[in-house]
Amino acid sequence: MESPGTLDAHRLDGEQPSQADIDLYRVLSADISAGVAVVSTSLRKRDYAATVTAFLSVSDDPPTMLVSLYAGSRIGEAVAATGTWALSLLRSRHQGAADWLASPGTPVEGLLARVPYRRGPATGSVILDGSIAYFELRTVAIHPAATHLLVVGEVVALGGDAPGSEVPDPLIHFASAYHRLAL
Amino acid sequence: MESPGTLDAHRLDGEQPSQADIDLYRVLSADISAGVAVVSTSLRKRDYAATVTAFLSVSDDPPTMLVSLYAGSRIGEAVAATGTWALSLLRSRHQGAADWLASPGTPVEGLLARVPYRRGPATGSVILDGSIAYFELRTVAIHPAATHLLVVGEVVALGGDAPGSEVPDPLIHFASAYHRLAL
Repeated sequence: MESPGTLDAHRLDGEQPSQADIDLYRVLSADISAGVAVVSTSLRKRDYAATVTAFLSVSDDPPTMLVSLYAGSRIGEAVAATGTWALSLLRSRHQGAADWLASPGTPVEGLLARVPYRRGPATGSVILDGSIAYFELRTVAIHPAATHLLVVGEVVALGGDAPGSEVPDPLIHFASAYHRLAL
Repeated sequence: MESPGTLDAHRLDGEQPSQADIDLYRVLSADISAGVAVVSTSLRKRDYAATVTAFLSVSDDPPTMLVSLYAGSRIGEAVAATGTWALSLLRSRHQGAADWLASPGTPVEGLLARVPYRRGPATGSVILDGSIAYFELRTVAIHPAATHLLVVGEVVALGGDAPGSEVPDPLIHFASAYHRLAL
């Protein structure tokens, strides 16, 4: 039912958002909780991998997922160029790898020197060892949106824990920090 | 570093996914952790609202978000028709409202009879009382993807907790159930 009183609101009125608009959006949108994944691809025998929270399952039939990548990033350019990629769903014990692959200054050479992985059978993309689940995808559409690319892919292979194995204990991002579930 | 051995994998080889492909995808994609929100819109003096986990922040500049909605759903049709909508980020104490607004058989009349809300100042869309944050949006693109619509919107108003107020305690969806963070 409708409550009395009015909502505390900040409006974006101008043609261009102000710095205050952007700063407030950054603070409030950081309160979107999200699982953490690594998106990866391989291009000309080089591996690309980056931590992401902006991904989701779009559809079950056919199995379809989406990842939002900064258009000017190495990973965004590489995924757009290859047309095949993978998502590894991380556990809380992957926090070190998540931190590493989220840092802006990761090297092109030796990126995965300390990150244990295997290769996905369908795309050759890197899949982090011990992921809760992984998905390999073939891009079916790329939609530019503001500064980002919305990359939509159909699942071509997938795998994960056998039911009843290790407690999943997913890594969660919320309010600019990593968290665990109260399981 | 690359680990020895091969990855346990299930490939989707056919033109059409099999029922086994879809079932496995449902199980594994349920392991994507996500915050929980209510998406809402108002069309011809009627309010539409539904629980979603498939939403994300696309860009800070301009502030841009995305929600993925089943194309044949009431909420999908309503959001596509109005061009304005809102997202309310839920706390764990909103679990009852989240359950209610996620059920397939919600009534058109009386949908919000037991859900306390106010209206967003920019769009008139329903915002659940006590949300961690809320965002009102104007649609800038709709991309069909498999069974769903990817609705991209620019933020036109937003609000949320003052810093230092109530501990946020977000509602999280993981493995087909609701959870809380270990805070």
